[in-house]
Amino acid sequence: MSTQTKFLLDESKMPKHWYNIAADLPKAAPPVLHPGTMQPVGPDDLAPLFPMELIMQEVSTEREVPIPEPVRDVFRLWRPSPLLRAHRLEKALGTPAKIYYKYEGVSPAGSHKPNTAIPQAWYNQQAGIKKIATETGAGQWGSSLAFAGALFGIQVTVFQVRVSFDQKPYRRALMETYGARCIASPSNETNAGRAILAQRPDHPGSLGIAISEAVEVAATNDDTKYALGSVLNHVLMHQTIIGQEAMLQLEMAGDDPDVIVGCTGGGSNFAGIAFPFIGQQLRGGGKTKQRRIVAVEPAACPSLTRGKYAYDFGDTAHMTPLTKMHTLGSTFTPPGFHAGGLRYHGMAPLVSHLKELGLIEATAYHQNACFEAGVTFARSEGIVPAPEANHAVLGAINEALRCKREGRSEVILFNLCGHGHFDMSAYSNYSAGKLVDQPYDEAELAMALSGLPGVPA
Amino acid sequence: MSTQTKFLLDESKMPKHWYNIAADLPKAAPPVLHPGTMQPVGPDDLAPLFPMELIMQEVSTEREVPIPEPVRDVFRLWRPSPLLRAHRLEKALGTPAKIYYKYEGVSPAGSHKPNTAIPQAWYNQQAGIKKIATETGAGQWGSSLAFAGALFGIQVTVFQVRVSFDQKPYRRALMETYGARCIASPSNETNAGRAILAQRPDHPGSLGIAISEAVEVAATNDDTKYALGSVLNHVLMHQTIIGQEAMLQLEMAGDDPDVIVGCTGGGSNFAGIAFPFIGQQLRGGGKTKQRRIVAVEPAACPSLTRGKYAYDFGDTAHMTPLTKMHTLGSTFTPPGFHAGGLRYHGMAPLVSHLKELGLIEATAYHQNACFEAGVTFARSEGIVPAPEANHAVLGAINEALRCKREGRSEVILFNLCGHGHFDMSAYSNYSAGKLVDQPYDEAELAMALSGLPGVPA
Repeated sequence: MSTQTKFLLDESKMPKHWYNIAADLPKAAPPVLHPGTMQPVGPDDLAPLFPMELIMQEVSTEREVPIPEPVRDVFRLWRPSPLLRAHRLEKALGTPAKIYYKYEGVSPAGSHKPNTAIPQAWYNQQAGIKKIATETGAGQWGSSLAFAGALFGIQVTVFQVRVSFDQKPYRRALMETYGARCIASPSNETNAGRAILAQRPDHPGSLGIAISEAVEVAATNDDTKYALGSVLNHVLMHQTIIGQEAMLQLEMAGDDPDVIVGCTGGGSNFAGIAFPFIGQQLRGGGKTKQRRIVAVEPAACPSLTRGKYAYDFGDTAHMTPLTKMHTLGSTFTPPGFHAGGLRYHGMAPLVSHLKELGLIEATAYHQNACFEAGVTFARSEGIVPAPEANHAVLGAINEALRCKREGRSEVILFNLCGHGHFDMSAYSNYSAGKLVDQPYDEAELAMALSGLPGVPA
Repeated sequence: MSTQTKFLLDESKMPKHWYNIAADLPKAAPPVLHPGTMQPVGPDDLAPLFPMELIMQEVSTEREVPIPEPVRDVFRLWRPSPLLRAHRLEKALGTPAKIYYKYEGVSPAGSHKPNTAIPQAWYNQQAGIKKIATETGAGQWGSSLAFAGALFGIQVTVFQVRVSFDQKPYRRALMETYGARCIASPSNETNAGRAILAQRPDHPGSLGIAISEAVEVAATNDDTKYALGSVLNHVLMHQTIIGQEAMLQLEMAGDDPDVIVGCTGGGSNFAGIAFPFIGQQLRGGGKTKQRRIVAVEPAACPSLTRGKYAYDFGDTAHMTPLTKMHTLGSTFTPPGFHAGGLRYHGMAPLVSHLKELGLIEATAYHQNACFEAGVTFARSEGIVPAPEANHAVLGAINEALRCKREGRSEVILFNLCGHGHFDMSAYSNYSAGKLVDQPYDEAELAMALSGLPGVPA
């Protein structure tokens, strides 16, 4: 127990570049298509929604993209985040494996989301933008962008799915404390929202509808842009600071991971920890250590393990461009479960592409097993993980138990992407035995998949 | 903005001793009295409640008390905690002062309380104790002891004031996630609780009643001890790791504080940051920099600024020993406000003694001003402080504004003792203009003070 627990990097060692995996891919990812023409989109097509710097990052193939100094200055508030060796968890499991976790819950918003919220807000500010509209489900992304907006003087409007708006008043209070405006979606502030409310005044909302509202506000107001918290290439790239730091910290620890585990919803925290290591393998050919990279998703919303790799829309209302990704169909509604950040019908195109290339594995777990892992983790390592992060915790635990069975002392690294302090009602329900492992509806999945736009490969 | 923000200590630099200010006091603090005999208590009087190692720490006059290695091993999960320079807050205030804050919200429970919960649990475990009973109001202390119990295999029972038990289910969920049992107080599990419930079945509870219940359980069960989260000498000493680390970190920053600010309820986080600096002054005589040490308390519960320095009981039911302290009277009931951790009628005897010796200052603020300071802090530094910590934030801001008026570039250090992620409903009420700055009732204070036991000085 006297070996080192925490590996800290001085802020002078914080990465100065994001890592862009597009530079190292053996084969480029399929292009993004315009929803009207079904032709590849150009930068100008995206200009109403994003500042040009972010659009250029979206399509960049440069390996290293500089992190602007004002962005690094904000990151210094919590970055470099700590890497910890889970000595007590290893002991509790009786495993010969070494388990490391990168802890992103130290950010002011409690998750990895500020890693991209800060640069997105900064690039918008540099482009003279005064307002950003976005959507949020449970609220991790909305509160992170609210935080970023407060620092860069940008007015943030968050369309929050109504059921979360009503059930999770604390995340909303966090957004408002940072000065953002939080609106229950569907709302009366957009055509998209009004159309839904006309049909059903008590509509509980969905991420798809909230996206439509935020996109509409950005598209119809010159002073307003849109921001997304996952899925897109530039968002995933912003998260690679996680994996780059982890690489330096594991060097300090004298270890090199055999297995890297992350949870996947839209794919950004997983990409953040995994892409720098995958890139190292891709560049090194056979000479670099070959690692297993494991994506863990909820069994109730299993895009990587049960979805189809096909072109699909990012939102329910089909206002967004089409991307080729593992999708359950944009009309698929997953059953209710507590990892709200993982309830998305599609997967980031880059993560999907890596899955197709055989560079990553994927597995899916139900929520009770994930919460059980989270409680085991909390009672040994202290930190109560976010429900999303519990998927990665369970993935890491299962790898460690495999090592125990096989008598192998592998090095396991996982991303603990956020703490669960805003999610204690879910733990409460778990403790009370009230959580149900509801499978998705096979018939609904078949229907949603049959409705895919059917763009030829 | 390019100067360093975060000062991190490697875990090898974590202090190996607690600092015991009793060694350096110009005059010893008055003795603790037995409630039956009114004579000074001896170690044996306290033995039913605490393990002997903690009792010896309570009366120790050794300057340095070693921190056991297994305790330091747990601390490595989050300690040394970061010291941050509040560049953005300084800019927002336009002050020439330098503001530093020590951030204790990085602990798994989100506050400084695990600094004493961990050693208390460990000393109990070493003494063969299997169970600890304690009380909690808002829940910071209860969740910290629950965390500590999980790590050392100790069964923790927490009597939580019923009104908090009902209003703050998330703190309770946190305690239960760590494996503790949380009981609404007054309860049917103790004579003290049953007596109260017989009079009033819907009694909302109070910290005084909860203390009585926990003490009763410990006193009447051989396998159970009691633990307190503040006030006592050994608890304050356990928190001095905060100030010792801050001293090393300020050396890294090349600065020496002119003013040190902490919030005070029972006094432990304030003592934690301030005592090592006060000790340095005491030992240095006139040769050391003379610093101002400012305690900030709630105007609705102002023990240091409006209480009487006199012998009083620690609980409402008068089961505890008597200590000389600044007290509002053990029957005083403060009006409701949101910094639950500061709603205590008395002040730590050591903090009270230092106040009498003229070594510290005290000031009191109402809650709306504190929340305003907390929002200013959140929008510049990102972290949303706990309502208790907002008192220290306002104290630091007021010192910085004084520096601005006086054109002085002083160095201000304050203790940000916890984050507010469990307190967002208070922020929500503040934003909605629903918080009232309710003064305490002067007549009630007079009555409570007239009921002091009247032990001769």
